[in-house]
Amino acid sequence: MTEPPLYDREEFYNAYLTLPRSQKGLDGAPEWPTLRSMVGSVTGQDILDLGCGLGWFARWAVESGATGIDASDISVKMIERAEELTPAEMKPKISFAIKDLNDIGLQEGVYNLAFSSLTLHYLSTESLRRLLGLIFASLKPGGRFVFSIEHPIYTAPSKPSPEKLHDGREVWPLDSYAKDGLRETNWLGGVKKHHRTMTTYLKELMGAGFVLSDFDEWMPSEEYTKKEPMWKFERDRPMFLLMKVVKPIVH
Amino acid sequence: MTEPPLYDREEFYNAYLTLPRSQKGLDGAPEWPTLRSMVGSVTGQDILDLGCGLGWFARWAVESGATGIDASDISVKMIERAEELTPAEMKPKISFAIKDLNDIGLQEGVYNLAFSSLTLHYLSTESLRRLLGLIFASLKPGGRFVFSIEHPIYTAPSKPSPEKLHDGREVWPLDSYAKDGLRETNWLGGVKKHHRTMTTYLKELMGAGFVLSDFDEWMPSEEYTKKEPMWKFERDRPMFLLMKVVKPIVH
Repeated sequence: MTEPPLYDREEFYNAYLTLPRSQKGLDGAPEWPTLRSMVGSVTGQDILDLGCGLGWFARWAVESGATGIDASDISVKMIERAEELTPAEMKPKISFAIKDLNDIGLQEGVYNLAFSSLTLHYLSTESLRRLLGLIFASLKPGGRFVFSIEHPIYTAPSKPSPEKLHDGREVWPLDSYAKDGLRETNWLGGVKKHHRTMTTYLKELMGAGFVLSDFDEWMPSEEYTKKEPMWKFERDRPMFLLMKVVKPIVH
Repeated sequence: MTEPPLYDREEFYNAYLTLPRSQKGLDGAPEWPTLRSMVGSVTGQDILDLGCGLGWFARWAVESGATGIDASDISVKMIERAEELTPAEMKPKISFAIKDLNDIGLQEGVYNLAFSSLTLHYLSTESLRRLLGLIFASLKPGGRFVFSIEHPIYTAPSKPSPEKLHDGREVWPLDSYAKDGLRETNWLGGVKKHHRTMTTYLKELMGAGFVLSDFDEWMPSEEYTKKEPMWKFERDRPMFLLMKVVKPIVH
């Protein structure tokens, strides 16, 4: 790899640290209540966190009674900061590691829950397929995989910025939805990610053996946008997609 | 109901009859090959067809070895024409009936396959919920429900027509995605339909007890649009959504 991972680039990392979700943790992420309800109880459970960032979910899981959590991220800076943010008494239950999801290996049949927040859209579909196979194998029967990604509607456009039309409508300029592949955006100074249709995501998940169990296109409620008018456009198109899929118990 | 069903209105019905899918049947519907692969073998099976239109699927099913098919539509004109198009020797195996899906009743545990093509978006979510419960109960364990609908991306916009932007991009002007409810469009002179998010569709299906088994956002291939440039825009946003869901065999 010639350039460092995105979240290790000085400018990007510093911009990322200013986001509400970096400063306030899970409570700074508007989709967290929905994701938490998909996660359910973690008491006495063994957990895998892929793309753990600053470790907010890992610490929440331990506070919520998890037995242990294996958390990893490709970014050295993120893992270093995650370690710093973690109180000493939690450390025996959390393993933070620097791992690239493109070549990670996972132990088989050991986790009750796999979790990944806003990470999988950085992987190519080939890498995603390999990873889903590993996650499926790493779960105990009946185990679940809960994750969030940028919604395909959000990642699709050739120019992903709202547009004002001649008649005053503000719209999301959807195009090239069918074309799976790389997209470049100017978020926090420039990010590359992989657009995939909903079809690709669901076919890959089902292909790995998972059964869909919950699904949410996170958008703010109408009431919320009345209090926070800045969020109004977020009801015009979904930004995040949240899913819970399950490894079936074979009879 | 003060006005006749959409497909019974003279102008709409006459316009509908000019469409390739009315003239050529299933071969005039570009999504049919995908839908057919979701349907799978129908040999020796009992089938339900909700919103059967001119009966093309019913006749295909009988030709393909189905034991029998109960096909219904709200439109008197469509059912009359379906009867006319059906050869006498097929009639013992097909029951065509005029039924409103808002108050239909279904026999329990009798079908191997339920099918519905481009119909469910005419129902409110309340009616859809009731109907999905009935369909689930009408299937034998292991039975499947295969259907197509207008894609939520297609039904969402306040003005569902492509727009040309200042820089030459032709885009689908997505807005109001979060807002489930009625939309009016000018297709064939004017149609009302119900927009629902993907979340609503999947939650209703899972809520009824179904397990997702196949999923496709039908769009033409890149090769196809090279031969038929008129279809190019159909890769910018999906028009149809096709799903196969299964009634699990309880152990």
